[in-house]
Amino acid sequence: MTEEQLPPEEVILGHFAIYRFTDRFWTLPPAQRRERAGAWLSGMKASADVAHLYLVQGLETGADVLLWSAARVPDAAAVGAFFRRRAATENAHRDVLEPGHVLWGVTRPSEYSRAAKSAQEIDPFAPGRRSYLVMYPFTKTAGWYLLGRETRQGMMNEHIRIGKQYRDITQLLLYSFGLQDQEFVVVYETDDLSLFSKLVYDLRATEARRYTKADTPLHTGVLVTADEWLGSLG
Amino acid sequence: MTEEQLPPEEVILGHFAIYRFTDRFWTLPPAQRRERAGAWLSGMKASADVAHLYLVQGLETGADVLLWSAARVPDAAAVGAFFRRRAATENAHRDVLEPGHVLWGVTRPSEYSRAAKSAQEIDPFAPGRRSYLVMYPFTKTAGWYLLGRETRQGMMNEHIRIGKQYRDITQLLLYSFGLQDQEFVVVYETDDLSLFSKLVYDLRATEARRYTKADTPLHTGVLVTADEWLGSLG
Amino acid sequence: MTEEQLPPEEVILGHFAIYRFTDRFWTLPPAQRRERAGAWLSGMKASADVAHLYLVQGLETGADVLLWSAARVPDAAAVGAFFRRRAATENAHRDVLEPGHVLWGVTRPSEYSRAAKSAQEIDPFAPGRRSYLVMYPFTKTAGWYLLGRETRQGMMNEHIRIGKQYRDITQLLLYSFGLQDQEFVVVYETDDLSLFSKLVYDLRATEARRYTKADTPLHTGVLVTADEWLGSLG
Amino acid sequence: MTEEQLPPEEVILGHFAIYRFTDRFWTLPPAQRRERAGAWLSGMKASADVAHLYLVQGLETGADVLLWSAARVPDAAAVGAFFRRRAATENAHRDVLEPGHVLWGVTRPSEYSRAAKSAQEIDPFAPGRRSYLVMYPFTKTAGWYLLGRETRQGMMNEHIRIGKQYRDITQLLLYSFGLQDQEFVVVYETDDLSLFSKLVYDLRATEARRYTKADTPLHTGVLVTADEWLGSLG
Amino acid sequence: MTEEQLPPEEVILGHFAIYRFTDRFWTLPPAQRRERAGAWLSGMKASADVAHLYLVQGLETGADVLLWSAARVPDAAAVGAFFRRRAATENAHRDVLEPGHVLWGVTRPSEYSRAAKSAQEIDPFAPGRRSYLVMYPFTKTAGWYLLGRETRQGMMNEHIRIGKQYRDITQLLLYSFGLQDQEFVVVYETDDLSLFSKLVYDLRATEARRYTKADTPLHTGVLVTADEWLGSLG
Repeated sequence: MTEEQLPPEEVILGHFAIYRFTDRFWTLPPAQRRERAGAWLSGMKASADVAHLYLVQGLETGADVLLWSAARVPDAAAVGAFFRRRAATENAHRDVLEPGHVLWGVTRPSEYSRAAKSAQEIDPFAPGRRSYLVMYPFTKTAGWYLLGRETRQGMMNEHIRIGKQYRDITQLLLYSFGLQDQEFVVVYETDDLSLFSKLVYDLRATEARRYTKADTPLHTGVLVTADEWLGSLG
Repeated sequence: MTEEQLPPEEVILGHFAIYRFTDRFWTLPPAQRRERAGAWLSGMKASADVAHLYLVQGLETGADVLLWSAARVPDAAAVGAFFRRRAATENAHRDVLEPGHVLWGVTRPSEYSRAAKSAQEIDPFAPGRRSYLVMYPFTKTAGWYLLGRETRQGMMNEHIRIGKQYRDITQLLLYSFGLQDQEFVVVYETDDLSLFSKLVYDLRATEARRYTKADTPLHTGVLVTADEWLGSLG
Repeated sequence: MTEEQLPPEEVILGHFAIYRFTDRFWTLPPAQRRERAGAWLSGMKASADVAHLYLVQGLETGADVLLWSAARVPDAAAVGAFFRRRAATENAHRDVLEPGHVLWGVTRPSEYSRAAKSAQEIDPFAPGRRSYLVMYPFTKTAGWYLLGRETRQGMMNEHIRIGKQYRDITQLLLYSFGLQDQEFVVVYETDDLSLFSKLVYDLRATEARRYTKADTPLHTGVLVTADEWLGSLG
Repeated sequence: MTEEQLPPEEVILGHFAIYRFTDRFWTLPPAQRRERAGAWLSGMKASADVAHLYLVQGLETGADVLLWSAARVPDAAAVGAFFRRRAATENAHRDVLEPGHVLWGVTRPSEYSRAAKSAQEIDPFAPGRRSYLVMYPFTKTAGWYLLGRETRQGMMNEHIRIGKQYRDITQLLLYSFGLQDQEFVVVYETDDLSLFSKLVYDLRATEARRYTKADTPLHTGVLVTADEWLGSLG
Repeated sequence: MTEEQLPPEEVILGHFAIYRFTDRFWTLPPAQRRERAGAWLSGMKASADVAHLYLVQGLETGADVLLWSAARVPDAAAVGAFFRRRAATENAHRDVLEPGHVLWGVTRPSEYSRAAKSAQEIDPFAPGRRSYLVMYPFTKTAGWYLLGRETRQGMMNEHIRIGKQYRDITQLLLYSFGLQDQEFVVVYETDDLSLFSKLVYDLRATEARRYTKADTPLHTGVLVTADEWLGSLG
C-alpha cells in the first residue's frame, strides 16, 4: 500500500437514485403533475451539495428519472446525516413517486493509478455536465483479490491505457465494499454514446475482463434540465 | 480493424418497447379503449422516424404489444433528442399503459462480414414488413473476446454460411455495449416462423454457440395494422 | 438429416396459458363469477381448434387454471391468425383475469424416433383426455448439439426405451427454438401421477440427463369439466 | 430395485401451502378478520384428512401462515379429487387471502433405508404434533443419479447415522419427481429449533452434501392452535 | 469439538426485519403518519427484550426502516413464544406497513475462537449503540465443510487477525442453519462506514473468501432515535 504517501483527499459520497412515478401521479391533471414533480426536485437538490437529473425513461425498463446526488463527507457522521436529510425530503412526495434502485459509494485514492488527479476524472461539483451519464455496480471475482499485486497492476495498466485513448470520456470510481452488494459504482460521462459504446467494446478484449463477476444492471441517462423534464410530464 | 476502409454508413438507432395495458384501461368502455390506444399509437409513431406495431399477447408472458421504432442518428445529440421526444409522448398515456421491457442499440459496420450491405439485412425504413419479428438481447462470454481474430472469424463464417441458406429470413444487428446490459440486440424478420425455428435449430450445432452467454428473453411478435389491433381491444 | 424421407405431417401448434383470476373477480358475487368465467372459457374454446381446461390451483404457486389450446397450421400465416384471434377473445375478459405464463411450440417429425406415429404419442384432437397433464419448457446444454449424431442417438435410445415401459403415459414434443426462450415444450398425459413420478425418477439415471440445461417451471394440471370448475368458483 | 419385496404401504399426499392475508383483510375490523380467518381454517381442515396450522410471520419474508394438509391416496383418482376439493374451499376466501408458495409430494418406500417404519418417521395423522416444523424442497445434482448404487448407499448410510443421533427430531420424505420443480419435499418436526440447527450443521460435513443441487426456500413454522392464531389477528 | 469444555452461555435470538410503509400510509395526513408509526414502534419494542431502529431508506432499494430485535432464549419454547408475540403486535399495523425481508438466527459458542467473550463482540443489550449497522446473510460453499479442521482453523485465524486490526468495529455471528436459507447472519456495528468499508476490502484478499457462497443482500442502516425518525415522516 502506498496510499499513506499520497496527499489527503476529500472524501465524496456519490448517490444514484432511480425513480418511477406512480399511478396516482399519472392520474393527476398535468399542471399538478408538474407542480408535484418540481417540488420534489427542488427539495432533493437542496438535501445534497449538488444533484443532477437524468432521463432514463425508455432507456431502461420500469423507470422514469435518475437523480445523481453528491455530498462532501468531512467526518464519519456526515454519511448518516446525508441519509437522514434526504429521507425526510423524499417522504413529502411518497404518495406520487416510488423510490427504486439506489446505488452509492464513497471516493478513495486509487490503488492502481498514482497520478495526481487526472483530467479524465469526473468532478461532481463542476458547473457543467456532459450530455450522457452511464453508471453500473461492479464486482470482481474472488480470484482477482488473490492474484499478486504486480499481476493486477499489469492488467490495470492495459485497462487504463485504453481508457486514455478516449480523452473526452470522463470517469468516477466509488467504493461500495461493505456498504451495498456491489464492490464499486463505476460512473462515466460522455457527449457521444456511440463513442462510449466503442470504448466498452474495446475493453472486452482485456485480460482484466476475465475477473469481472458482475457489471449489471447498467443505467444510461440523458441529461435534462428541470424545465425540459417538467414540460414533458403532460 | 478494417472499419476505417469501409464507406461511412448512416447510424440508426433501433428501439423496442414492450407494453402492457393496465387494469384502468381494461375497465374503460371498449370505445374509449380504442380511442386511447389509437392516440398512443399515433403519438409514438410521430415521435420516431418510423415505428412498427407487433402483437405479443399470448406469445410471451405478461405483455400486449411490441413497438419497434427506428431513428436516424446524424450526430451525437440525436440519441438524447430521440429519448426526450418519446418520453414526452408516452407520458400523455401513462394512466392506461405500463411501459415494460425496453431494448435498444445502434447500428455499426460488422467486424466479420465485409460485404456491401447484404440482401438479407433489414432496412427498418423499407415500406413493407414481413409477418413476424423475432428479437432478443445477446451477450457473448468473456472468453470469446480473448480468442484470436482469425479463430473468431472462422466461427463467424460457419454461422454466416448457415444464415445464407435461409434467404427469406432477414437480419439486423444492433450494438448495445455500454448502453444496456446486453452486448447486442439481434433482430430477425420472417414470413414463416417454422422456417425460422429450423434456422435457430441449425445454428445450435455451430462452434460459436459455445460462446453465447445469454440470448434471452426472446420476443416474438405478429405484425398487426393499427386497425386490426384497435379492433381487437374489445 | 433423414427428415426429407418421411411422409409429410400436419404441423400443429400447441399453446398453454396459465391464468390467475384477479382481485376484482373474487369480489364479484358468486353467480357473476361463474358467468364471467363461463363466458371466458366458451370464447377461448371457440378461438382454437380445440381447448382443454386443467385445474392448477394448489398444484403450483400463484395460478388458477391452465388452458391447453391446439390449432392446425396449414400455412405460414396460420400462426399469426391464431394469436390475433385468441388476443381479441381474451381481451373481452381482461378486467377479471390476468394472463400468466404462456408456453407454445409446433410439432415436427422427431429426429431420433423414425417409427410411424407411436401409440404413446398424444393426439390433441382425440375425443377423451387422461386425468392429468404435466408440461414443462425444456432446454438442452450447448454441448449436446456439438456431440456426434450417433452419440446422441444412443442416448436417446436409452431414454426412449424407458418411456416405452410406461405404456399408459403418452407424450407430445413441441419445438420452440427461436419462438420462445425454451427449446421444447414437453407434454405428458397420464391417469396415474404416482406412476408418472416413477417414470421421471427412472429417467434421472440416464446419460442424456447430463445434457439437460433447464426443465422448469413444470406445470401439473388436473383435468376438469367446465361445470365442475364453474361450480367451484364460489 | 428391491421395492417389490417390501410390504405394500399406504400412499399419503402431503401438501404445504403458504398464505398471506391481503390488504383488504387488514382493513377489516378485528372481529371480522377473526371470523373470516376462522371460516377459512375450518373449511380447509374439512377438505383434507388432517391439516395443521403453523405461524410463519416473522420467520420468513412475505408470509403469514403455513397449512400442512395430508390426504390418503387409495387410488390414482384421489390426487385429483383432493385438489378439486381444496380449490373449491379456498375460493370462498380469495377476496381476503392470497395463496402463496405451495409444495407437495407423495410418500414412497425409501430406496436406502429398508427398516420397518422407523420411530423417527413422521405420522401426519398422529394426534399430537411437535412445536416446530421445518420443510424445504430438495433436488440432487444430475451426477448423483449416475453414481453406482453402492456408492450412493454408502453416502446415505453416513447421512442416516447422523440423523439417528438426534432421536427427538422426526422426519418425512415426500417424492415430487415430475409433480413439481423439486425432486423431494423434506419435512422435519422438533420441539427444539437449536437442536435441529445443530443437526443441519452436522450434516454439512457429509459427502452426500456435495450432491445437493438445491434445498431452498426453507420454511420454518411455529405450531399454533386455531384460537391462539385467531386471537393474534387484531 | 471443544465446545463441551466452554462455560455455558446464554442463547440469544437476533431478529432483523425490514419494513416498507404502504401507499395507504403515505396518503395519511402527516400527524396521523407519525401517530401510526409511533404506535408500531412502541409495540414492537415491547414485544422483544430490546429493539433498535435504523434508517435504510436511500441506503437500499425498496425499504424504509430496519428493526433489530433481540430476545433471550432460556428454553426451547422461547423461540415460538417470541414469534407469536411479535406477530400479534405487528398485525395491529398491517394496514399501513408491509413487512419485508426478515433475517434471524441464534448465538452459539464459536468453533474457531476459543477466547473468553471478546471486546469486539456485540452485546445487543448494551445501553448505547454505534451509529451504523451492517448485516448480511452468509453461506459457505459445500467444499468448506469437507476441508480438514486444521485447514479451516488456519484460514479463520487469518480472517480473525485482520478483524482485530479494526478495534472499533464490533461483530456478532448468528447461526441460521436449518432455520432460514442462509447459514449465518453476520452483524457489524461501527461509527465510521469508510473504515468498515476498508475492513471488508482487506478481507477480500484472504483465502477463506474462496469459500464464500453468498453474502448478499447486505443491509446498511443509520441509527435513528424514535423522535428523529417520526419527525422525518412528513
